Amino acid sequence: MPKYTIGLDYGTLSARALLLDLSNGQEVATTEYVYPHAVLEADFFTEIPMEKSAALQHPQDYLEALQHIVPELLAKTHVQPQDICGIAIDCTASTVLPITQDGTPLCFLDEFKNNPHAYVKLWKHHSSQAEADQIDDLAHQLQTPWLEKCGGRVSSEWFFPKVLETLHKAPAIYHRAARFIEAGDWLTWQLTGCETHSSCIAGCKSFWTPQDGYPPNTFWAQLHPDFANIIGTKVSQDVQLVGSKVGEINEHGAQLTGLLPGTPVGASLIDAHAGIPGAGVAQPGILVDIIGTSSCHHVLTREEMTVPHICGTVKDAIIPDFVDYEAGQSAVGDIFDWFVHNCIPAAYERAAQERGLNIHQYLTEKAAALEHSHLVVLDWWNGSRTPYADFDLTGMILGLNLRTRPEEIYLALIESTAYGTRAIVELFEEYNVPIHTIYGVGGIAHKNPLLMQIYADVLGREIRVPATRQAGARGSAVLAAAAGGIFPTVAEAVLALASPCDAVYTPNPAHKPHYDKLYKHYQQLSEYFAHENPIMKGIR
Amino acid sequence: MPKYTIGLDYGTLSARALLLDLSNGQEVATTEYVYPHAVLEADFFTEIPMEKSAALQHPQDYLEALQHIVPELLAKTHVQPQDICGIAIDCTASTVLPITQDGTPLCFLDEFKNNPHAYVKLWKHHSSQAEADQIDDLAHQLQTPWLEKCGGRVSSEWFFPKVLETLHKAPAIYHRAARFIEAGDWLTWQLTGCETHSSCIAGCKSFWTPQDGYPPNTFWAQLHPDFANIIGTKVSQDVQLVGSKVGEINEHGAQLTGLLPGTPVGASLIDAHAGIPGAGVAQPGILVDIIGTSSCHHVLTREEMTVPHICGTVKDAIIPDFVDYEAGQSAVGDIFDWFVHNCIPAAYERAAQERGLNIHQYLTEKAAALEHSHLVVLDWWNGSRTPYADFDLTGMILGLNLRTRPEEIYLALIESTAYGTRAIVELFEEYNVPIHTIYGVGGIAHKNPLLMQIYADVLGREIRVPATRQAGARGSAVLAAAAGGIFPTVAEAVLALASPCDAVYTPNPAHKPHYDKLYKHYQQLSEYFAHENPIMKGIR
Repeated sequence: MPKYTIGLDYGTLSARALLLDLSNGQEVATTEYVYPHAVLEADFFTEIPMEKSAALQHPQDYLEALQHIVPELLAKTHVQPQDICGIAIDCTASTVLPITQDGTPLCFLDEFKNNPHAYVKLWKHHSSQAEADQIDDLAHQLQTPWLEKCGGRVSSEWFFPKVLETLHKAPAIYHRAARFIEAGDWLTWQLTGCETHSSCIAGCKSFWTPQDGYPPNTFWAQLHPDFANIIGTKVSQDVQLVGSKVGEINEHGAQLTGLLPGTPVGASLIDAHAGIPGAGVAQPGILVDIIGTSSCHHVLTREEMTVPHICGTVKDAIIPDFVDYEAGQSAVGDIFDWFVHNCIPAAYERAAQERGLNIHQYLTEKAAALEHSHLVVLDWWNGSRTPYADFDLTGMILGLNLRTRPEEIYLALIESTAYGTRAIVELFEEYNVPIHTIYGVGGIAHKNPLLMQIYADVLGREIRVPATRQAGARGSAVLAAAAGGIFPTVAEAVLALASPCDAVYTPNPAHKPHYDKLYKHYQQLSEYFAHENPIMKGIR
Repeated sequence: MPKYTIGLDYGTLSARALLLDLSNGQEVATTEYVYPHAVLEADFFTEIPMEKSAALQHPQDYLEALQHIVPELLAKTHVQPQDICGIAIDCTASTVLPITQDGTPLCFLDEFKNNPHAYVKLWKHHSSQAEADQIDDLAHQLQTPWLEKCGGRVSSEWFFPKVLETLHKAPAIYHRAARFIEAGDWLTWQLTGCETHSSCIAGCKSFWTPQDGYPPNTFWAQLHPDFANIIGTKVSQDVQLVGSKVGEINEHGAQLTGLLPGTPVGASLIDAHAGIPGAGVAQPGILVDIIGTSSCHHVLTREEMTVPHICGTVKDAIIPDFVDYEAGQSAVGDIFDWFVHNCIPAAYERAAQERGLNIHQYLTEKAAALEHSHLVVLDWWNGSRTPYADFDLTGMILGLNLRTRPEEIYLALIESTAYGTRAIVELFEEYNVPIHTIYGVGGIAHKNPLLMQIYADVLGREIRVPATRQAGARGSAVLAAAAGGIFPTVAEAVLALASPCDAVYTPNPAHKPHYDKLYKHYQQLSEYFAHENPIMKGIR
C-alpha cells in the first residue's frame, strides 16, 4: 500500500525535495541541491552581451537537481520507490525556456549555446520590459477582459513579454523553438514524456482562464506578424488542472530520479502558490501571508469576485474550483535588512555580539520593551504592489525626534508592514472576499514572534503559523497525493494532510485602540502620497 | 592712548574672555574658566527637592570666572591695565537671581543656601512652565501689545515666569529678595557698583520696550497680589542702551579683575546676541545665522516691521536705533548628532577610524560625492521654532528606498536645515525685512564647507563666514569700545572692528533649479503637517 509522496520545490538558487508521510502528514526528510550556475551573470555570455536587467538560468542545473535530491531523499529515509505514490513539482514562474519538438532546451544545441536567449529566462528577468509595455498598451487599447484580472498592468516578469523579447532580439531562436515552456512544466515533461501546462502557471503568468484559454491569436497577431499563430504552435494549449495527474514516471524519469516507472506525476505549481496547500489551506476565509523579503498574500473564494488593485485573480490556480486572489507587499524582510545594514550603530552591533544574539534578535528584544512606536512609516522602500501598483512610491518615516532610538524605528518598520498587510485585508473585505484568520508562512513567521504579535494586534485577527519550514515542497507533496488518487479531491488532500501549527497569535484587545488610530493615520498618509501629493515621483 | 578692550562671554558651562586690539581689530588672546558647579543637578539640594526640569547655577562660579579669566588674559598678553579702555559682558539669558539690596545673592546667605530658588535660574530652567502659561493666558486675554513682539507665546525661558515661580514655590525668598536681576546685569554691578538693566536682555526676555518700558504693574497685579508692585520694587526700571557705558570699574571690580578703577564698563548683552556685533554686522540686509545645536537668526532694520511667527522683535536690542528680529530653528547640529549617534553603521565608523576622520568628516566626504539627495526631510526633530512655533511637530524623512545609504540621509538632513533657513529668510522678506547676504557664525560654519555651500545654493545668497571663533566675546569687546567712547556710535565701532572673513560661499546657479523644486516640496509638506494633517500631534 502506497504511503508517501514527494514534493519538489524549484526556487531561485536551489531545488528542495520533501518526503511526506501520508499516514500522519509528517515531513520525513528534505534534501537540497544548490544550482551550480545559480543566476547567470552578464559575463557568462561573451559573444552576445546581456542587458543588466537580464536574469537567466541553465536548465542543466534543473536536471542535475532531479538526479540529486530525489535519490538522496530515498537513500536517507530508506523508503522504497514502490512506496512513493505520487510526485509533483513547484517552480519559480514565469521562468521560460525555448525547446525543440522533443523537449531539448535550445541552449543544449551547439549552435545556440552562446546565445542568452536560448537559456531559461528567470522570473526576475526584466530586460523584456519594452515588450511588457507593448503588450500592456495593446491590451489597454483593446480593453481586453483579462487585463483587469492581472492587476491592470502587464509585467515583464510574465511569460509572453519574455517570448516576444526573444522574437525581437534573437529571431533565429524564436523561429527554431518548437515550443516555449515554463520550467515547471518542462520538468514534469522530463519525468513523464508528456507535455502539459499547469493551470496554476498559465493562469497566473499567461492570462489563461478556464473559460477562454489564452488570449486569442487575433490579439497576438497585432504585436508582430511572427507572433500571429503562437497559441497552438509555440505555446501548447493543453492545460491541466492543479492536483491532476499529468502522466507517470517514464523510463527517462525513472533513470533521473530512481523512482519506479508508473509513479503518478501531478501538474506543476508556482513555488509561492504551493505554499497555500503546504500551509494546509483549501478553504475561503483564510489569508495566507507568505512573509519574506517581499510578501505574497493569497485567499480563496468559491464565487469569483472583482477585487481591483491586486496582482491576480485566477480560477483553478491553486485548488480546483476555487478562485485564488493574490496581493503583495513589494518589500517586507528587505526593509528590515536595509535597516540593519544601513542604520544600526556600532554600539548596538557590539552589544548584540556580546549577548550572542544576531542584530535582528537584539533589536527585537529592545523593541519588545516599548509598548509601541511613536512613529508612522510608509512601507514603500520598493514601491507599493498592493493596493497602489506604483513602484515610484518610496518609504517615509514620520515622528522622529532627538529621543528616537534605533529600536523604535525598527519597531515602526514592523508596524508599517503590518499596516500594509491590514490595507490588503481590508481591500479584500471591501470587495466581498471575507478573511477571518491569517496564516503566516515563511522564515520571518517562525523567527520573529514580536512581529507576528504586532501583525495579530494590527490586523485584529488570529494568526496561525503552520509548523512546516518547507511550505512549497510540502504543498507539492500534498498535491501529489491528490494526483496519485489517494484523496478524491485536492481540497480533501490539503485538509487531511494539513500541517500542525507552531504558534497561534491572538490579538491583544488592549492594543486595538492605539493601532486602529495609527492605522487611520497610515491610510490617510498613504492616500495623500499615492494620490494627492506627487512628491514621491518628483524627487527621483 | 588706550588700545584694547575686553569682552567677557558667560555661556552655559564656562566663561571666556577675549582681548581685542582696537588698532587692527585682531583678537590678541582668549582665556576660559569652566564653572566648577556647571549646571546644578537634582542631588545638589537635599532638603528641598528640585523638579527634573529645573536648571540652576551657582553665582560663586561667575565671580570666580571673573577672578580667573581677566587677570590671566592680562598676564598672558603682557598688556597693561591702563591700556584697557573698556570692558563689556555678555551672558546667557534669561538667567535670573534674587539678591539683597547690596547685590548679595540670596544663596550666599546661610538661611537660604539649601533652597534651590535662592540660586541662579539658568535660561533653560523649565520648571516655571506653569507660570509661563499663566502669564501667557492673561496676556492673551488682555490682548497686550507686547505679546506679538515676542512671538505670540510666553516662554518659561524668560524672566517673569522664573520670578513668579519663586513667589509660588518659595515665597520667603521672593519676599526677602530686594531685587531679581539678570546674571549679565548682576555681573556689571559687581564690576561697577551700579545696578542697571541692559536694553538687550530686558527687551528680549522681559517684554521691555523703549517706548513703554516693562508691562505695567496693573498687569502683574492680576497674577498674584504680591506681584502687584513688582516693577520699580523688585525689578529696577533703570534700563541702559546696549553700547552705553553703565559705569566704571570700582575698587571691588578692580580687586576681582586686576583692571584699573575707572575703566569704562558697557551695558551687558545676551550671549547669542553679542555674536551679531562680533560678526561685524550693524546694518540692515544681513541675516546672521548662528549655527549650533540649534540655530538663531538675527536681522536688523531701521524702521520697525511686524513679522509674525518669529521669536522676537526688539528695538535697541543689539545696535541702538535698530530693530532686531530673532528667528530660530530648534534643532540643527542636534539633528546631525542624533544621526551619528543612532544611525551610523559599524562599517562606517571603522572606515572613518581607518582614515583618521571623525564620523562627521567621513559622512561629509561621502555626501559630497552625491550631487544632492533624493530625499525630502522636515527638520523638526525638536519641533519648529520659526515659522510654526509648534514644539509638537516632529521630524520626517521621505523618499527612502532599498538603495538609500547613510550618507544620502545625512546629506538630506543638511539640505532640510537649509530649507528651514530659507523658510525663515523668505518669511522676513515677505514682511519687508530685506536680506541680501547671510553671515554664518558658530562651529559648524567653520567646520563644514559642504553644509555652507548647500546653504548658499538653497538660499540663493552669498554666505560669509567671519573668521572669529568667539563671536560672542568679540561682540562684547566691540561694544566695550563704544562704551569706552572710542567710537561715536555702536554701529561705527562694529563696522570699524569687523572681523575678516574666513570663507565666502557663492551660490552655484547649476543647483538652483533642483533646490528650488525641492524647497517647494519642503514648503508644501511643512504646511500640510503644520496646518492640515494633525498626525504629528496625534502620535505623541
